[in-house]
Amino acid sequence: MGKLVLVRHGESEWNKENRFTGWTDVDLSAKGIQEAIHAGSLLRENGYVFDIAYTSVLKRAIKTLWYILDALDLHWIPVYKSWRLNERHYGALQGLNKAETARKYGEDQVHIWRRSYDVLPPSLTTDDERYPGKDIRYSHVGKDSLPLSESLKSTVERFLPYWEESIAPQIKQRKKVIIAAHGNSLRALVKHLDRISDADIVGLNIPTGVPLVYELDDELKPIRSYYLGDREQIRKSMQEVADQGKTKK
Amino acid sequence: MGKLVLVRHGESEWNKENRFTGWTDVDLSAKGIQEAIHAGSLLRENGYVFDIAYTSVLKRAIKTLWYILDALDLHWIPVYKSWRLNERHYGALQGLNKAETARKYGEDQVHIWRRSYDVLPPSLTTDDERYPGKDIRYSHVGKDSLPLSESLKSTVERFLPYWEESIAPQIKQRKKVIIAAHGNSLRALVKHLDRISDADIVGLNIPTGVPLVYELDDELKPIRSYYLGDREQIRKSMQEVADQGKTKK
Repeated sequence: MGKLVLVRHGESEWNKENRFTGWTDVDLSAKGIQEAIHAGSLLRENGYVFDIAYTSVLKRAIKTLWYILDALDLHWIPVYKSWRLNERHYGALQGLNKAETARKYGEDQVHIWRRSYDVLPPSLTTDDERYPGKDIRYSHVGKDSLPLSESLKSTVERFLPYWEESIAPQIKQRKKVIIAAHGNSLRALVKHLDRISDADIVGLNIPTGVPLVYELDDELKPIRSYYLGDREQIRKSMQEVADQGKTKK
Repeated sequence: MGKLVLVRHGESEWNKENRFTGWTDVDLSAKGIQEAIHAGSLLRENGYVFDIAYTSVLKRAIKTLWYILDALDLHWIPVYKSWRLNERHYGALQGLNKAETARKYGEDQVHIWRRSYDVLPPSLTTDDERYPGKDIRYSHVGKDSLPLSESLKSTVERFLPYWEESIAPQIKQRKKVIIAAHGNSLRALVKHLDRISDADIVGLNIPTGVPLVYELDDELKPIRSYYLGDREQIRKSMQEVADQGKTKK
């Protein structure tokens, strides 16, 4: 049996400002740092160790992982960073305030962009400063693979090859793996592992900074999965995520 | 022309206590954290960017690198960690106070252990808790390669294969490389690059937390090399390192 731990990064500066972040490389907020440290403490108190770690190329996930490795005294384990673990790319919405966008386009439209499975937000153009082709960290990625905008479906599609080729083989070799990533790249993985339908995945929220443990059989089918930590706090954190698109916030 | 930057980790808890550290995985002191942040600032102010980073499997070097990557906003670059970049293994001296050891064995003997090229400090036995074979992070390393004690010569010998096979090819491919490591693994590299004799290398001290820049030609021969930062501070830092074995400290 293999164990896999997923952690969604703690609050970022833009979570706090309620803006669409996507691939924008914003830092953790002070609260986000505390959430990351707390995730590390929970893992340490529960005796977790890891052989290998995966994260995105965005600092809010990378630094969340660093705080966790520091808490676990596991600085030395290999860490692999891939753009395929990035947050969903929010296209031309990146940088906009969620409540303002809701007032402008209507709550329903924003809810569709945020929570439908396959509707793409408005696309970037390649001359936009936010186009990933302008960022050196994606220079090794083929232009055809770089998104102008992503739905959850497109996020699943670019995440899964990395899961299959890089992460899953390590777990099958009995390596203890931790993944520090983002709301939507982790939803992509949870959808895949738990075989959640396109319709149902849109209602699933992953709280920030709470380790989500999967116990997997030899074919990587989940035997059980659970969050570490206080149940009431987890429920509140999930509700906060769900509420972000509302104008009243 | 390639550029290579070397940084020796900032002060550790045991530097502060004047103990032989070697492969003991002690953390940075508060001063060491400041030194790492300062190294990052110097690199940022001088416009340095990197494609790839190397460090040891010891947290004082890894965390020095993390602080530097944070200052440079380069969290996303690949980081490779290898035991071959570790500090020299101090054998049975690890954990002992340098001044006490000098009082017990004499300053001359300690100076020989610390500053001769090829004299090994007293060896560990394999049943010693400090034996690297008992540490999971070295479980992939062949028992024959794991040291019981190391001279600077043995450090050079285990460091150079990694340089030749992993780091040098990246520099030849025009990758901009930073190495965050330790006093003796960096002396091993400096000896190799500058073709310093066995006799002369023992008098060379590398200050902590000061970026050392090498400009290299296509055959990786140094064109020039220099420290970044304030000259007087660098001189003082070198003197502090040289003084550590003295009883009067």
